[in-house]
Amino acid sequence: MLKAEIRIGLKKGVADPEGQNAKKALELLGYKNVNDVSAEKIFVVQLDMKDPAEAQKVVENMCQRLFANPVIHDYQISLQ
Amino acid sequence: MLKAEIRIGLKKGVADPEGQNAKKALELLGYKNVNDVSAEKIFVVQLDMKDPAEAQKVVENMCQRLFANPVIHDYQISLQ
Repeated sequence: MLKAEIRIGLKKGVADPEGQNAKKALELLGYKNVNDVSAEKIFVVQLDMKDPAEAQKVVENMCQRLFANPVIHDYQISLQ
Repeated sequence: MLKAEIRIGLKKGVADPEGQNAKKALELLGYKNVNDVSAEKIFVVQLDMKDPAEAQKVVENMCQRLFANPVIHDYQISLQ
């Protein structure tokens, strides 16, 4: 069994309202020294597969079809 | 400048509708071999601080006050 971690972030230049709101909230709570906050997403997929090379291809395909929007998202896959 | 990555996941036993819906969607798209999907969240906080020990304390405090709900969330902090 393999575990794939898919980390999905916004491409550079795409607005990140969730991160910006978190930054604002931290400032309102009195935290100084916060330069930037960005929000990302992780999907952990447990696969009933044994071959890492094949699993990598399958997960890549899942990202393109379901998890990531290629217009705004970058994604990284790490298999364990 | 330090970068803190805060990874927030659901505690064991807490329902994960986002992960379950992703699993269902993968099945509908024809992927077999998917045992489980879980969804997590990452906040990347850029801090204008130099002392990692102090930054760790500050970020820990941010998690307790803003990012994580202690009833349902577990969190991990990694500083870089």
